[in-house]
Amino acid sequence: MNEILNKFEGFIFDLDGTIYRGSKLIDGAKEVFQVLNDLNKKFVFVSNRTTSTPEKYQEVLNAFGITCKEEQIITSAEVTKNYLIQNHPEEKVFVIGEKIFIDYLKVNGIEIANHQIDIVLVSLDRTLNFQKILKAQKALQNGSRFFAANIDNTCPVEDTEILDAGFTIAALENLTNRRLEKNFGKPSKLIVNEILKRIDLPADKCILIGDRLETDILMAKQNGITSVLVLSGVTNENLLWKSHIKPDFVLKNISELTKD
Amino acid sequence: MNEILNKFEGFIFDLDGTIYRGSKLIDGAKEVFQVLNDLNKKFVFVSNRTTSTPEKYQEVLNAFGITCKEEQIITSAEVTKNYLIQNHPEEKVFVIGEKIFIDYLKVNGIEIANHQIDIVLVSLDRTLNFQKILKAQKALQNGSRFFAANIDNTCPVEDTEILDAGFTIAALENLTNRRLEKNFGKPSKLIVNEILKRIDLPADKCILIGDRLETDILMAKQNGITSVLVLSGVTNENLLWKSHIKPDFVLKNISELTKD
Repeated sequence: MNEILNKFEGFIFDLDGTIYRGSKLIDGAKEVFQVLNDLNKKFVFVSNRTTSTPEKYQEVLNAFGITCKEEQIITSAEVTKNYLIQNHPEEKVFVIGEKIFIDYLKVNGIEIANHQIDIVLVSLDRTLNFQKILKAQKALQNGSRFFAANIDNTCPVEDTEILDAGFTIAALENLTNRRLEKNFGKPSKLIVNEILKRIDLPADKCILIGDRLETDILMAKQNGITSVLVLSGVTNENLLWKSHIKPDFVLKNISELTKD
Repeated sequence: MNEILNKFEGFIFDLDGTIYRGSKLIDGAKEVFQVLNDLNKKFVFVSNRTTSTPEKYQEVLNAFGITCKEEQIITSAEVTKNYLIQNHPEEKVFVIGEKIFIDYLKVNGIEIANHQIDIVLVSLDRTLNFQKILKAQKALQNGSRFFAANIDNTCPVEDTEILDAGFTIAALENLTNRRLEKNFGKPSKLIVNEILKRIDLPADKCILIGDRLETDILMAKQNGITSVLVLSGVTNENLLWKSHIKPDFVLKNISELTKD
């Protein structure tokens, strides 16, 4: 696969399922970044998770022996925050999400509210309960906006997967007959713009490596970025064959990027 | 529609959306039962709700001026309880459901458990939270049985609809790659058997009146019972046209049963 390494200038990596799985680094991942550094390639990391911060991701990657700067990590939380500040500075947001995400929005001046809600914002929430669903339902029925920081159906944790925002979104769509209006995470145009700005290269000079068809690979395809599916995460060969989303390359895992 | 009244001997009624909506009786519903009594017809009521009891339903109906006995009311909770006692008397059941349902199972000798779970049983649960989903997920991944007391996607309350068991079932199926094994509510064979036993008539002498295509009408069609869809509940004409489930008759509401 040295062909890939030589052909592209910018490398966009998913994290969970691509670089590591739970607390375990994918075999050979560290060496991939040594080669990329040796070849002077640019790279960034992109996550749809709102339950961590670029700073924390940097620590995790550094602990795995992968050197990177905080600016090389792009999260859907950041894209969400930027969009809300620019487009809805005065509006009250009800968040189905975890404390770290809510605190991050608050610190950045976004007004979080439980009443007189202008915007319902959905993300991964391990503290999800029926009352939150009801509150969001009522707000949507009263005409509030309907946004999501990510749309993944499941999220990998340790040896299993848990419910992610996709289910909350589907439930609310079903209950209210409303449709999600905007997603700030992969595969949205908004996070693509942030990625290309951060990597400072045009789409056709970039390649994306990820484990999820409906976010990683779809985003690459819709934006003229070459895509590599790795089978080290949520997608197995069976799911790949059944899907209409077809990556440009399929690798067992990230370490094959640097193999002949 | 007097033709219907004369032709059938047994009348099977759904409750929510058919006889009443929230705390409001459907106009003319009371008169329907006066006519049925005058004609000496048999009738029963069937509910997929596990959050009430036949005794409570009887009180509600009586308060609306509809006279009936407790034995004329069949709930999915009762069918669930009977099945578990007969088929899994020694097994531990983890319930995603409300206190009234759990208490009812307990009182009837079913062992409710949070650990070493043999059976995951799903129903409507307004106290649903992420921890319950995780516990059920883990049990299913460890091989526990997967049952539901009802499979409705939504449940009408006051002027809106809330998430019902269907959402929890879909989430668990997706997370675990397991499929629900058994449903005790409409449209299951188990609740049909109980209905026909209670009304003491063969299926072809009965007619079912309900507002939900995928439970009421489907159950009737699959079991040789003539079906009437009423548009006073969750199904409007648009949903009816789009569905592959076609009732034998469609009425604006139950009162049309007794109109010429």
